[in-house]
Amino acid sequence: MTRESPRSPAENAELALLLEVAGTPKPGNVDRRRDLGDLRFEQFLAGSVGSAGGLRMAAAGAPVGRAFKRAVRGMSRQSGGNTQFGCLLLLTPLVGAAAQGDLTSEGVEERCRATTVDDAVAFYRAFEHVDVAVGDPPESAAGLDARRGSDAEPALRERELTLRDVMELSADPDEGVPDTNAQEWIEGFSRTFDAAAAILADDGPVLDRAARCFLRQLAAEPDTLVATKHGEGAARDVQERAEATLDAVERTGSLAPSEDLAEAFVAEGINPGTTADRVAAALFVALERGLAV
Amino acid sequence: MTRESPRSPAENAELALLLEVAGTPKPGNVDRRRDLGDLRFEQFLAGSVGSAGGLRMAAAGAPVGRAFKRAVRGMSRQSGGNTQFGCLLLLTPLVGAAAQGDLTSEGVEERCRATTVDDAVAFYRAFEHVDVAVGDPPESAAGLDARRGSDAEPALRERELTLRDVMELSADPDEGVPDTNAQEWIEGFSRTFDAAAAILADDGPVLDRAARCFLRQLAAEPDTLVATKHGEGAARDVQERAEATLDAVERTGSLAPSEDLAEAFVAEGINPGTTADRVAAALFVALERGLAV
Repeated sequence: MTRESPRSPAENAELALLLEVAGTPKPGNVDRRRDLGDLRFEQFLAGSVGSAGGLRMAAAGAPVGRAFKRAVRGMSRQSGGNTQFGCLLLLTPLVGAAAQGDLTSEGVEERCRATTVDDAVAFYRAFEHVDVAVGDPPESAAGLDARRGSDAEPALRERELTLRDVMELSADPDEGVPDTNAQEWIEGFSRTFDAAAAILADDGPVLDRAARCFLRQLAAEPDTLVATKHGEGAARDVQERAEATLDAVERTGSLAPSEDLAEAFVAEGINPGTTADRVAAALFVALERGLAV
Repeated sequence: MTRESPRSPAENAELALLLEVAGTPKPGNVDRRRDLGDLRFEQFLAGSVGSAGGLRMAAAGAPVGRAFKRAVRGMSRQSGGNTQFGCLLLLTPLVGAAAQGDLTSEGVEERCRATTVDDAVAFYRAFEHVDVAVGDPPESAAGLDARRGSDAEPALRERELTLRDVMELSADPDEGVPDTNAQEWIEGFSRTFDAAAAILADDGPVLDRAARCFLRQLAAEPDTLVATKHGEGAARDVQERAEATLDAVERTGSLAPSEDLAEAFVAEGINPGTTADRVAAALFVALERGLAV
């Protein structure tokens, strides 16, 4: 697949972060029309700008873990806390693959398989820059609790875990919620590439396409962040409501039903943030493949 | 004045472009809640990302004209046409001064005074990347019509006009509309620094501060773009309506009166774009001086 973009991969990744947060309605998330209490749109703008240096490192061929840590550090230089940690976890290997001219499922999977224990250590260190909502690890993996940051380094080195190994543990944990972002890492970003194809096949303004992409993704499976915060039952309920809303949006050709869902989720404190991460990744792939802005 | 920002000058300049377009309501301009027909919010996001390379050149000490041309070229890689030409004309020397640790009226004026004929030639070339609304020059300066792009080079070289000289001609033209952006170049960016101080003295979320800054600037003097497109009478009328709206906003402490003005200006096709340029410049200075996002 040839590149068809007037922008570099790092520029497209930053733009994908911006288009993701601007996409509206994106039920339960900050979007062009909604803040979530103290978590505000402008903090996502600052997070996007701050991420760019790390994204350029990824494009220049830096190790995935180091580029990710740098992007997260830059992202965190705003007062909203964690705005785009999950987006960057998906974007970093994608940008690397795109810069190598190999933005395919195989190309990005290869990059993930090439990660080392040093990448895993850098990933853990990234947690020191920002509070990320993660579930409690099983007792057997207590030493690998992501919230330990660099304190996890000895356990990582002793068990010789690469960053992909760490993702594998989160993708299919012994107990707790499987992380769909980690599953993307393990499964060659299949959801991301499919979602990008759907964005390209869609029509209308980019921010409407982003909104429909979000709704399709939310209807397709339970959101990891909702499951982590509110339980798997709540995440399935959110998925079912998104499915019904998607039906109404497709039947009417209008995003109005999704506006209603957005109001409801904000009122209920439901924040499907992991689904938004995947939308950013899909927008990046679509931009690389010629999505016009 | 010491730097008090967690971001580099180039990052703050890019963020200023994003905060400017997101600031709402910004009567007559694209903002977080409004597109203007085919000129859409996401094109300003892409324009901001595309500008970043030129802004980094400015920070690294490249000549102002070359950095500006590069920023404009990058900005233009989206389908909306001219989104931020005027913003970049103000930001480029400001970023250079900030990177030298001298973001003062004197510091930026010095950079403007140091521009050369080559800077002027690069400035004219920037017009080849994008359609910019400019008035007809007086007959005596027909060779310097900005729309001539690089065809103006011989006239610039023959008359030995630096970029500051070109700005001086636009700041105080023999006939036609004086350009307030050019006046900033000649007058040490006094409006910009005053507006930045007012943003820092204001309170509340950054995007509300941007909206109030816009209204204050629009109430202070006629907008150059409105005067160019609709005549000086129309520009004075816009200024008076902004003054009345500013009174109402200050009296009520609510931006609602400005929302009404925004609806009216959009309906009338009034686009005070030069005032928005100055808001971006003021946001940049405020960010450099510690405005938190």
